[in-house]
Amino acid sequence: MSTIDEYLQVNAGRREDELFELLRIPSISADPGSRPAIRRAADWLLEHFIKMGLAAELISTKGHPLVLAESPHVAGAPTVLVYGHYDVQPPEPLDKWTTPPFEPTIRDGAVYARGAADDKGQVLTHMKSVEAWLDVEGGLPVNLKFLIEGEEEVGSANLEEFVRQNTKRLACDCVVVSDSCQFSPGRPAITCGLRGIVYYELRLRGPKRDLHSGSFGGSVANPANALTRMLSALIDERGRIQVPGFYDDAVPLADEERRQFADLQFDDRAYLEELDIDAVAGEEGYTTLERRWARPTFDICGLTSGYQGEGAKTILPSTASAKLSFRLVPDQDPEKITAGLKKILADVCPPGIRMELIDFQGSPGLMVSPENPYVRAAARAIEYGFGTPPVYIREGGSIPVVSTFAQSLGADILLLGWGQNDDNTHSPNEKFSLADFHRATRASAKLWEELGKVQ
Amino acid sequence: MSTIDEYLQVNAGRREDELFELLRIPSISADPGSRPAIRRAADWLLEHFIKMGLAAELISTKGHPLVLAESPHVAGAPTVLVYGHYDVQPPEPLDKWTTPPFEPTIRDGAVYARGAADDKGQVLTHMKSVEAWLDVEGGLPVNLKFLIEGEEEVGSANLEEFVRQNTKRLACDCVVVSDSCQFSPGRPAITCGLRGIVYYELRLRGPKRDLHSGSFGGSVANPANALTRMLSALIDERGRIQVPGFYDDAVPLADEERRQFADLQFDDRAYLEELDIDAVAGEEGYTTLERRWARPTFDICGLTSGYQGEGAKTILPSTASAKLSFRLVPDQDPEKITAGLKKILADVCPPGIRMELIDFQGSPGLMVSPENPYVRAAARAIEYGFGTPPVYIREGGSIPVVSTFAQSLGADILLLGWGQNDDNTHSPNEKFSLADFHRATRASAKLWEELGKVQ
Repeated sequence: MSTIDEYLQVNAGRREDELFELLRIPSISADPGSRPAIRRAADWLLEHFIKMGLAAELISTKGHPLVLAESPHVAGAPTVLVYGHYDVQPPEPLDKWTTPPFEPTIRDGAVYARGAADDKGQVLTHMKSVEAWLDVEGGLPVNLKFLIEGEEEVGSANLEEFVRQNTKRLACDCVVVSDSCQFSPGRPAITCGLRGIVYYELRLRGPKRDLHSGSFGGSVANPANALTRMLSALIDERGRIQVPGFYDDAVPLADEERRQFADLQFDDRAYLEELDIDAVAGEEGYTTLERRWARPTFDICGLTSGYQGEGAKTILPSTASAKLSFRLVPDQDPEKITAGLKKILADVCPPGIRMELIDFQGSPGLMVSPENPYVRAAARAIEYGFGTPPVYIREGGSIPVVSTFAQSLGADILLLGWGQNDDNTHSPNEKFSLADFHRATRASAKLWEELGKVQ
Repeated sequence: MSTIDEYLQVNAGRREDELFELLRIPSISADPGSRPAIRRAADWLLEHFIKMGLAAELISTKGHPLVLAESPHVAGAPTVLVYGHYDVQPPEPLDKWTTPPFEPTIRDGAVYARGAADDKGQVLTHMKSVEAWLDVEGGLPVNLKFLIEGEEEVGSANLEEFVRQNTKRLACDCVVVSDSCQFSPGRPAITCGLRGIVYYELRLRGPKRDLHSGSFGGSVANPANALTRMLSALIDERGRIQVPGFYDDAVPLADEERRQFADLQFDDRAYLEELDIDAVAGEEGYTTLERRWARPTFDICGLTSGYQGEGAKTILPSTASAKLSFRLVPDQDPEKITAGLKKILADVCPPGIRMELIDFQGSPGLMVSPENPYVRAAARAIEYGFGTPPVYIREGGSIPVVSTFAQSLGADILLLGWGQNDDNTHSPNEKFSLADFHRATRASAKLWEELGKVQ
């Protein structure tokens, strides 16, 4: 490993330049106007893989293309699939960015740009470690496949289908995903659980046009009033979700895991300060880490109705809508949740209001064991790259396709997050620590060696 | 009156042209960018009054200017103040207009434009009837003052102050206001009651930035969730408003008035069809007319939070806000309502959420008696202009300054609405019937004669 380490050190500046190049491409998957940028990002990866010495191709889908690359075959070695995504969240609200989202800028040792941590920077650690192996050693100790998609931020609908229909081509012993966080700066982690998600848009319609709230108010059901009543019926004051059957299949937190979480000594006071709030909140009877990692949630992600401009406009709006996210834990079933949600919404929808529920792609949660041999190999690689052994955590976010990998490929899942919790993924001023970028690349290079030894 | 009638008939086309001229000016008082247009509309009125033979001037305020005009003095005759407004509601959403809001277009005998009925068209009926008297008779049978403001749609804050400080200059026996509706086509009305209004913006703040709903969801109070819970606490399922003390001062509907309303045989089925809804709604125990005219309301006029674009963005938003309108009946006191609202909101605001309530200008409701001599004079004028006697109704909307006139000037109030309920004031495709425009101008000309006879 020493020659590889030296190579990584010598080429650190070039790696940063390449990361910035990729970050400059505004590959926003949710935005129909960003198609050309999405394509540029995919092409950038394709050319990069080919230059590194991998066989690579773009795979068209109904949506944005997949990038698939394979290393030269090594007989007898395990096969590892690296998954990541080159698409990014919308950058709005733009006026809250200190520097523009697609002009990567270094401040305090971190690069600021949309996609820096989620997920372009993390994907690049694995690409660059492979490049180092191939440049220095002329080969890898494992068989590697890279599958990098462009639709993670919009539900991975087309990747899911591709995985299910190409299980032979993607066959592997384990899947490596770096699209999450360390526990805290200096405390790298292996993530042994992910929450699932279901996401909906609820649209309500009342009268066919906005009405004068004086002439008509009081006699016609108001969709905005109805929306607040219906949504507040979904969760009670103790943070318990009221969707019928919601908790039926949720695996409760084991006492052992609650102890492990408590040992991490999560600092609620620092959390309040970081977020500038005066109290934590959530489901009664759970700690902050338990609420974030291992309990299901209901969050309204957006509300839209009527007049949103300056001043007072006295209307009874004709429509109201909301974006709704439920995070799930194993073994909650997205389809059962959708059925329950439809039932309660139909029950609470008042007369005079018509309702439409748009169901976005959902995915179940996931758990893996710290005793898994690939997890143990990863732990050694992380200790090598970061100089300290990892802690075992869960992650509150969802990587929808990971459940598909586990189910369709029968592979073990390695969730190695290189980000930090304050990286502002999904909000303005997203960033990624450059020190972590380089440490993670070193850990990744070691990972191929360690995984190569697993029987 | 016959020469005046003839004059009105001969000049009908010119009157329409002049109305269209005024409607082309986008005098949107809520929009800071519309100041030049507001000024153009005020100047248009000023020049028009002067050309008619009235003494007129623009009066500057902290906001948009007032137009004040006076007819030549007639000794011994009563004095009448005509109030109206030249500002209009914002036209948004623009894509729902069949023809552009500031390009008046005739369809099916009505002119379509923002401000056609609310209130430019109605104001012009009184200006044009005065012009007819002066051109034909060289004088008027009453003393007339016109006070036309540019801030009615944003709460009349500066007019209120002007009225209170200029009671001598505005002194009059009665105030004529045409800024409301007939009962239905062919059934002109005198409005004997107006609802008051209080209007607020509620702003909630949670974490200092939008958060990833996976990584943070469940552990931090979500302002959008809080908003739905807080707003749904303001009204129960039976349509009863939960603000403490809300109904304490509300004058209940008298049995006699309930009978009068019932005699109007309001057609609920036609109402459902007109609005394209499948049920009426509102406070339990009241009819549609009672709910619209004589009972207080709570309507959310706008909701704003988080992601409002296409697709799914998985955030826990940092802020959420709502625009809130309560319509009041006599003798509810806006200040007491505000105090009660603040109390209940503070009670239901959850930990981790900071709240701000912005209080817009409020005004109490109003009632006048059908036995009032000016009301009886107006009834005769309406019968003359429309060929049928008026019915006596109330109006659910608010004309905030009318209460100020009643209180500050001690004058009787004549609410003579020339519009129709389906005129789409405050929504796209606002219109005003041209037949009503001309009938109302004829009624207005007769009104000056009838009011001149009141002892």
